[in-house]
Amino acid sequence: MKNTVYIISGPAGVGKSTTSRRLVETLARSSYISGDVISHLPVNGRGKPWLDKRTLDLTWKNILNITMNLLDYEYDVVIDYVSFPKEVKWLAEELNNRDVKIVYVVLLVDKETIILRDQLRPEEERMGERSLILLDEFENDSELLDTNKLYTHECKIEKLSEIIEGILQDDKYLLR
Amino acid sequence: MKNTVYIISGPAGVGKSTTSRRLVETLARSSYISGDVISHLPVNGRGKPWLDKRTLDLTWKNILNITMNLLDYEYDVVIDYVSFPKEVKWLAEELNNRDVKIVYVVLLVDKETIILRDQLRPEEERMGERSLILLDEFENDSELLDTNKLYTHECKIEKLSEIIEGILQDDKYLLR
Repeated sequence: MKNTVYIISGPAGVGKSTTSRRLVETLARSSYISGDVISHLPVNGRGKPWLDKRTLDLTWKNILNITMNLLDYEYDVVIDYVSFPKEVKWLAEELNNRDVKIVYVVLLVDKETIILRDQLRPEEERMGERSLILLDEFENDSELLDTNKLYTHECKIEKLSEIIEGILQDDKYLLR
Repeated sequence: MKNTVYIISGPAGVGKSTTSRRLVETLARSSYISGDVISHLPVNGRGKPWLDKRTLDLTWKNILNITMNLLDYEYDVVIDYVSFPKEVKWLAEELNNRDVKIVYVVLLVDKETIILRDQLRPEEERMGERSLILLDEFENDSELLDTNKLYTHECKIEKLSEIIEGILQDDKYLLR
C-alpha cells in the first residue's frame, strides 16, 4: 500500500499543530515532523528562517531526508510547517521516484481570528505581526491553488474530526 | 576549519542533556540533536528503541542524515543520545569521507547516584530499572574504551564548566 506524506501548512495561529497531531493519531502507522523543531536544530549561528535563505534550505533538506527515511520504514508522514507552494513543489520533486501520495493542505482563517488566536497564546510564543504577514503571503501566492486551501474560521474543537476526515478523504488536496 | 561531531552518551540520568546543552552554548556555530526527539518522530506503530532494532536503525539513519546536512552548513553537531560504541563506529564510518573530528564521551556515575537522580525526576520521566540496565550495558561493553568514559559522581553544577572544558580540550575522547 502507498504511504502518504501530508503537508499541513498555513500561517502561525491557524491550528497547524492541533490538526497535525490529531491526523497523526488517526493514522495506523504514522510519524510527525514539526518543522519548527527541525529548524531549531542549529542553535548558535542560526538565522531566522524567513530572513535567512540558507537556514530555510537546511530545514527543508532535513525534513526531506527524515521523510525519506520514514517512508523507507513504511510510515505515513505528517509535516507541520509553514510551507509555501514553491517549497512543497521542491519536496514533491525530490520524492519523484517514490511511490507515495502527497497531500498539501493550507489552513487559513480571516485576519480577526488570527490576531485573536495569537493573543491567546503564552507571550513568549506570540508571533505578533508575523502571523498577519504570513497570512498575506499565503493569500497572495499565485502558485497556491484554491483547492489546497482549507478555511477554518470556525475554530471549535468539535469541528476537528470533520477537518481530519476531509484531509483524509478529499482528493482535492492531493498533489499526486 | 574542521567541524566536530560530539556524541554525548551514557545511561539515562547521568546528565547527558545538561552537558550537551552547555556544550552547544559554548560553541560558536553549533547545533543540537536530541536522539530522544528523533526517536519519537514515528508515533503510531513505533517500537521501543531498546526492544525493536528497526526503530533504533531508523533513529540512527535520521541522526546521520541530519548530521551530514548540518556539517554541509558548517555547524558543529552535538548528539545527545544513549549511543553504544557499535553505533558510534557505524556513524563514524558513514562520515568517513568527511573532513570532520568525532568526539565520543560516555558519561557515567555509580549506581547509587543514578538511582537517586532518577528519583528526583518528574514521575513520568523516570526510567526506573532501565537506567541501571543501561549503566551495566555500558560498564560491560568490551568495545568501550576507558579513555571515552567520563565519571561525574560529583554532580555539582559548578563542575560543569570543567567537564565542558575537558570535552573540548582533551584528545582522549577523540575518535578521529
